[in-house]
Amino acid sequence: MENLLNNIEETLLMGPGPSYVHDSVYKALSQKTIGHLDPYFIQIMDGIKSQLKQLLNTKNELTIPVSGTGSAGMETCFVNLIEKDDPVLILINGVFGKRMEDVTGRLGANVDVLDFEWGTPVRLDDVKRQLESKSYKIVAIVHAETSTGVCNPIEEIGSLLKGSDSLYLVDAVTSFGGMDIKMDQLGIDVLYTGTQKCLSCPPGLAPISFSNKAVEVVKKRKTKVPNWYLDLTMIINYWEGSTRAYHHTAPINMLYGLYQSLFNIIEEGAENVYQRHKEAHQLLVEGLQPLKIEMLVEAPFRLPMLNSVKIPDGVNEAQIRQILLKDHKIEIGAGLGPLAGKIWRIGLMGHTAYPHNVNRLVQALQVCLTN
Amino acid sequence: MENLLNNIEETLLMGPGPSYVHDSVYKALSQKTIGHLDPYFIQIMDGIKSQLKQLLNTKNELTIPVSGTGSAGMETCFVNLIEKDDPVLILINGVFGKRMEDVTGRLGANVDVLDFEWGTPVRLDDVKRQLESKSYKIVAIVHAETSTGVCNPIEEIGSLLKGSDSLYLVDAVTSFGGMDIKMDQLGIDVLYTGTQKCLSCPPGLAPISFSNKAVEVVKKRKTKVPNWYLDLTMIINYWEGSTRAYHHTAPINMLYGLYQSLFNIIEEGAENVYQRHKEAHQLLVEGLQPLKIEMLVEAPFRLPMLNSVKIPDGVNEAQIRQILLKDHKIEIGAGLGPLAGKIWRIGLMGHTAYPHNVNRLVQALQVCLTN
Repeated sequence: MENLLNNIEETLLMGPGPSYVHDSVYKALSQKTIGHLDPYFIQIMDGIKSQLKQLLNTKNELTIPVSGTGSAGMETCFVNLIEKDDPVLILINGVFGKRMEDVTGRLGANVDVLDFEWGTPVRLDDVKRQLESKSYKIVAIVHAETSTGVCNPIEEIGSLLKGSDSLYLVDAVTSFGGMDIKMDQLGIDVLYTGTQKCLSCPPGLAPISFSNKAVEVVKKRKTKVPNWYLDLTMIINYWEGSTRAYHHTAPINMLYGLYQSLFNIIEEGAENVYQRHKEAHQLLVEGLQPLKIEMLVEAPFRLPMLNSVKIPDGVNEAQIRQILLKDHKIEIGAGLGPLAGKIWRIGLMGHTAYPHNVNRLVQALQVCLTN
Repeated sequence: MENLLNNIEETLLMGPGPSYVHDSVYKALSQKTIGHLDPYFIQIMDGIKSQLKQLLNTKNELTIPVSGTGSAGMETCFVNLIEKDDPVLILINGVFGKRMEDVTGRLGANVDVLDFEWGTPVRLDDVKRQLESKSYKIVAIVHAETSTGVCNPIEEIGSLLKGSDSLYLVDAVTSFGGMDIKMDQLGIDVLYTGTQKCLSCPPGLAPISFSNKAVEVVKKRKTKVPNWYLDLTMIINYWEGSTRAYHHTAPINMLYGLYQSLFNIIEEGAENVYQRHKEAHQLLVEGLQPLKIEMLVEAPFRLPMLNSVKIPDGVNEAQIRQILLKDHKIEIGAGLGPLAGKIWRIGLMGHTAYPHNVNRLVQALQVCLTN
């Protein structure tokens, strides 16, 4: 009987995630499974919470990984906060902002959106005007828009919201672990992220963090959270307190992987990790110039970990991606939505963000484009 | 900096899950991560679908793992099928039946329940009477009630429902992989399970299967599924068809683990696996007799993989569990809800279900109880 797992070939993951996984994380994933209520496992859970708090620069007690991928993090944040007809403002300049609109609409929120051109950042003036005209329970934005490579001005939006009653919600799926996020200082109330981007861990978990203000909103709901699996009022009792109550069986080995990936960042030094991302990004931009491959996003708004590049004229973009994967064992990402066929997305996330990986991609692209 | 993962001690997992994980599954978890749209990964996904169909004895095309633990499987099935005020009948004789009531209530269903004594099976006469008095969109039952160790009569309930318009929904979290489930022959329309029980894979995924009749119900919904993350109408496009559309990033390495665990069952021979569970169960029952430890459930209704045993008089049950874990490195489970303090739950799931493990537990219990 053929076992497909025997023929997996290592690929240099330079798409929009998953990213390259460090050997120490593979090793962590295969540590012996212990019980989800074993006192030693609870120590590991507490370790993960304190690692997350450290890297998010937050004191939020409710800082835990949700048992699903990054999108489950998005779902968790909104489903716990929203009740029918709650006014929500979503700032959209890419796929993941659109996804927020879809998620919140399904939950019965009264959703307003501000749309901005894909490939450009959210404009502060428009947001300011909107906030002056109406008050919202939640104002939501994507920090690092994975579909375009744009970094949104989360600090400035935080300043606009200071002193308001709104909850400030930030999608940090792609930015966390690759850029500094001072959650408390920026006034972010709610944040979710994922493991498969700059943490260099396989996909499967979604760290979230809720400020006390956000926790109060959850606790004062008039209706039950319409999602049992992601109901934080119950999940808290498993992740906090002296006696831990079973809710659902935690994904134990994935949590080992998350612990190790956070451990690696802290050990390397978070600032060093962020600097490494910046330098890899700079090297990529310079390396692509001789190939006449231009960046989609203007320099001040570019993310280091997700580089959207315009496909040169006359190039069959899907074919190049196929050749890169098949002949060079390098994966890069396609464009999504209106950017499909127009850009490639090159990820420099976590342990992918090293000069030797950048150089390997640039050389491979050169071969592909000149053949 | 201390790394907590360096001091994980192997534990013999004989609780209600997670169960003992086979070395081949640990190895699978640590195979190199490849992209979630990599053609080779799609082959592995197709492999998982066909393994699941084989072991569930079903032709259902929509047979896939959901990206969450077993309870996410429960959530997925109900959230995709239920619209406001839909009549649903839940048959309850334990925690996991109660959980179904909670989940469906949150989704706005019109929920009727039939309650049966915990530790006894669902009674057919009562179900028959109820079905004659009212028609339901969904009739739901737990096959192997993990909180009590009772096996419910899913074949007989299937017969009662034959020819009706109701969807027959079965929770097979604890039974799948340890008992034969002929999904199509029994007329089951909707089924969910988990990886951390008889599959002997760590927790993190929830295989589900929907009959064509159930898929039609999802497709004909009047309202959007109120849960973006678990919306099968979108997830199908990632798991089926010739072009696979990104929905959320699949938990790649967990899927490797699931593939390997299903591979192991098929390689050993499913019938041999089920027989091994039965024999381990029989050995346990016999081994506990000299210790005066009695079974909670009457013989005809006992599950092989989850054994609820009455705590002998005068025994501090929590202390014994602590000693078993600390001194013998064996985990068994406590009772839940009304059975807390009254029973232990001894799991013989997957690769835990071997005579040497049963003997080790019986000997350890003997030491604990006679000291």
